[in-house]
Amino acid sequence: MSEEPVLIAGEWRKAEHPLGTFTAVDPATKAPLAARYPVSSFDDLALALRAADDAAAALRNVRRDDIARFLEQYAREIESETDALADVAARETGLPASPRLRQVELPRTTNQLRQAAAAARDRSWCHATIDSKTNIRSCYAALGGAVVVFGPNNFPFAFNSVAGGDFAAAIAAGNPVIGKANTGHPGTTQLLAQCAHRALGACGLPASMVQLIYRTPPELGFKLVSHPSVGATGFTGSKGAGLQLKEAADRAGKPIYLEMSSVNPVFMLQGALAERGAALAKELYDSCALGAGQFCTRPGITVLIHDEDGASFVGELTAHFQRATPGTLLGESGLRAIAAGLSELLEHGAEIVTGGGPVEGPRFCFANTLLRVSGKSFLASPHALQAEAFGTVNMVVLADDLAQMVEIAGHLEGSLTGCVYSDSRGKDDDAYRRVAPVLRQKVGRLLNDKMPTGVAVSPAMNHGGPYPATGHPGFTAVGIPASLLRFAALHCYDNVRPHRLPEELGDRNPTGSMWRFIDGAWSQGDVAS
Amino acid sequence: MSEEPVLIAGEWRKAEHPLGTFTAVDPATKAPLAARYPVSSFDDLALALRAADDAAAALRNVRRDDIARFLEQYAREIESETDALADVAARETGLPASPRLRQVELPRTTNQLRQAAAAARDRSWCHATIDSKTNIRSCYAALGGAVVVFGPNNFPFAFNSVAGGDFAAAIAAGNPVIGKANTGHPGTTQLLAQCAHRALGACGLPASMVQLIYRTPPELGFKLVSHPSVGATGFTGSKGAGLQLKEAADRAGKPIYLEMSSVNPVFMLQGALAERGAALAKELYDSCALGAGQFCTRPGITVLIHDEDGASFVGELTAHFQRATPGTLLGESGLRAIAAGLSELLEHGAEIVTGGGPVEGPRFCFANTLLRVSGKSFLASPHALQAEAFGTVNMVVLADDLAQMVEIAGHLEGSLTGCVYSDSRGKDDDAYRRVAPVLRQKVGRLLNDKMPTGVAVSPAMNHGGPYPATGHPGFTAVGIPASLLRFAALHCYDNVRPHRLPEELGDRNPTGSMWRFIDGAWSQGDVAS
Repeated sequence: MSEEPVLIAGEWRKAEHPLGTFTAVDPATKAPLAARYPVSSFDDLALALRAADDAAAALRNVRRDDIARFLEQYAREIESETDALADVAARETGLPASPRLRQVELPRTTNQLRQAAAAARDRSWCHATIDSKTNIRSCYAALGGAVVVFGPNNFPFAFNSVAGGDFAAAIAAGNPVIGKANTGHPGTTQLLAQCAHRALGACGLPASMVQLIYRTPPELGFKLVSHPSVGATGFTGSKGAGLQLKEAADRAGKPIYLEMSSVNPVFMLQGALAERGAALAKELYDSCALGAGQFCTRPGITVLIHDEDGASFVGELTAHFQRATPGTLLGESGLRAIAAGLSELLEHGAEIVTGGGPVEGPRFCFANTLLRVSGKSFLASPHALQAEAFGTVNMVVLADDLAQMVEIAGHLEGSLTGCVYSDSRGKDDDAYRRVAPVLRQKVGRLLNDKMPTGVAVSPAMNHGGPYPATGHPGFTAVGIPASLLRFAALHCYDNVRPHRLPEELGDRNPTGSMWRFIDGAWSQGDVAS
Repeated sequence: MSEEPVLIAGEWRKAEHPLGTFTAVDPATKAPLAARYPVSSFDDLALALRAADDAAAALRNVRRDDIARFLEQYAREIESETDALADVAARETGLPASPRLRQVELPRTTNQLRQAAAAARDRSWCHATIDSKTNIRSCYAALGGAVVVFGPNNFPFAFNSVAGGDFAAAIAAGNPVIGKANTGHPGTTQLLAQCAHRALGACGLPASMVQLIYRTPPELGFKLVSHPSVGATGFTGSKGAGLQLKEAADRAGKPIYLEMSSVNPVFMLQGALAERGAALAKELYDSCALGAGQFCTRPGITVLIHDEDGASFVGELTAHFQRATPGTLLGESGLRAIAAGLSELLEHGAEIVTGGGPVEGPRFCFANTLLRVSGKSFLASPHALQAEAFGTVNMVVLADDLAQMVEIAGHLEGSLTGCVYSDSRGKDDDAYRRVAPVLRQKVGRLLNDKMPTGVAVSPAMNHGGPYPATGHPGFTAVGIPASLLRFAALHCYDNVRPHRLPEELGDRNPTGSMWRFIDGAWSQGDVAS
């Protein structure tokens, strides 16, 4: 059977001197799927980089409205392929076609593309800043090179390298994208790239704005992210792969934005458990089990005080973990990764409450697993006891008292999220005042009385956080327009003649509604003459 | 003679187990100055880090107004020490006490502190973003750990590690600072830290907010910037030292903002030279000679077309370089660095037009040096021919034609600035349209008909640019409020109860005038209820 084509320089073409081929596997049957995808050699990457250079140059003269029209047309193309996309994604990932893929993730993805389109058209994202007295003007602008996007396995649409949040942000900021498909769902990614390719054609945009390869060896990935033609990289995936790419990109002085791993601690204060422990146990379990526990924001650690309410909460939670049927994992590597994470946790004092091993049968499946560890043991090995086990796994940390709970918070590593549940009538407010300031420093998003697994596409969202959750605490991967700032450079114009300024920095407001920071105040108006 | 004390944990104290001592040298006489400063061991650093942790925790409860008052009080303390500061800085750096230090750099420094105070009080810098429908709210906030600042040798006040731009930005964003004095001017830095210490006391702020060491071996510097207690690092200095610190910080996932080296290319288009070549030769020379050529934004490369006007411009420029008395360098290492840079340039085809060697005599001095190289030679070794020679040195690149000029622009590495001079009546507009888009991608600040050495403290300034000028193209070291964003983390609050939100994110505007991005629009009002 012949190999599937890559999308390079505007053409679906045979890979140049591929280093091998691979197939995806249906996680529900463990059967390899038919299509064979090439492992790209540097020949493909070099061609893609050159084409991206040309696209970056062409994009300087493309109207922002045309970029917006492309993103909107792409959203429509995706919608018109809903059946095919849900079908191939379900086969490649084991995620339910309905409601998850069709009714939840696909609309989220097209919504992101449309929000990105609105941001591109509106232009306020670029923070145009005008100092009329000195005639110095600046704004964020495209990087002038390709943005490389590595998509994760767990969101085949919403974080896809050629359709997801990083893609939408990079394109809306005016950059061409080179997508590296997640090897778990190459067919889904190919189908999305076909939609993108058609949309580019329909809008008359440079065809090399969106390119796709499926796989390349790690050392070529390092070469890619550090290449002079690359503007920046967006990566969502494992900490191991992410850190290696980070090292290569850092060494070359190339920005790289990573979303790597996160234990997402949940603090259950005493009053909350006394008030509504049983309901919280159900809420926590549901959050842990979403997508078979393979959400970046799945709660991995629950911290509570080991009193009577705490014990009964753990009992309820255990029952949920035991009763529910475990979901299908995205792939075989997930089984190994969970086992490795658990073994690290067990080695350092955690005990299995329920679960702990793979489930035999036709699909890739791991038992729902609840662990527990004492606060004292946690504090003795805090690093090892934050090993990630990417599945329906949670570890309860049983603190002796509030002081120890605060100390545990102080030993957390960087996470995307942190939650505090407290009594609804304010009984926990003193405890909150001790825990929350410590937790605040460790997480990108702090929640009250709410599980972290929902990541709203809101301008105020932060899907980011301190290392090692990401590589920089100042950027978010979700939430438009802020996510665009990752793929932009600050461009200042000093004494530049008016007719040579980009529209965004001219005296006249280019859209009539764009927000600009003019002489110390945000304004939708023109520069006063 | 006893050693000078370090400032750690709010006290001027003897260094703990210092690894040695050093003295500053008067560049105008080559004589060592009397005071002996300790080389800190890790004992000092560990104490400072612990104290900074405490200060970071205390700062969470300090009112923004009090931080602003401190910065203003500090500015006044500096002004009251003008005589002493100008005196010690002149002795340690060889820079003229007047006008440079007293009338130019000191007021710039206090102005920066006051602008930072205004930003801290105003709070708009934190980009508070409120999505009232989802009740998700976010803003930039202090990093929760120390900001380490390494100051450069060339601006003893304005970029000083305990008084300059990085310091002001880090403090205004709510972080404690650990300053590492530039070893060229430890006495100046000590005097500034004394002013800061007094101002902290007067305002009742945590005394460990500002700490000072003078020197530590490189490997301890690496340990410092990668320490868990550190929030971020600001470094201004040589590329060699900067890249080593970057590697250590990157490996630990700690943000580091670097300003390292920049050739600051100037493109002289044909019409400009025909119109006003002689005036431009004077303007360029003056810019090259400012501060004995030791400005980060000094023009290092001048690109022009080798026609008759070009030749006569080079003649005029040569005369300026020959006629003027060369300034005093900041130190002996400057002599070696210039010689090393020149030797790299000469080895790759540049020729000396005038100058090229040290000037014998009582002071550290290098001859004003002009070089030239053909466009063809430049394109053959573009990397080597961008070696920095930090002094009154400029290299003219003689292009055959406009096409080659554009190609030269395409081979430039990242710089802080890039200038294009063109005919005032528009004759060069076609040439500008070819050169400027290429140059734009290589620089942080693009100028027209203006030399880059002035760096206005404007909200629209970008004193930054692509690698290797800095480590990230999205941040500026000068310009308030944007420079504060380097020393901040994005903090999101999801469903957090109203009384637990930071003031900046409450429904009520905390100052009555702070700008916040509420439901998609910038506003100075409250959240509509």
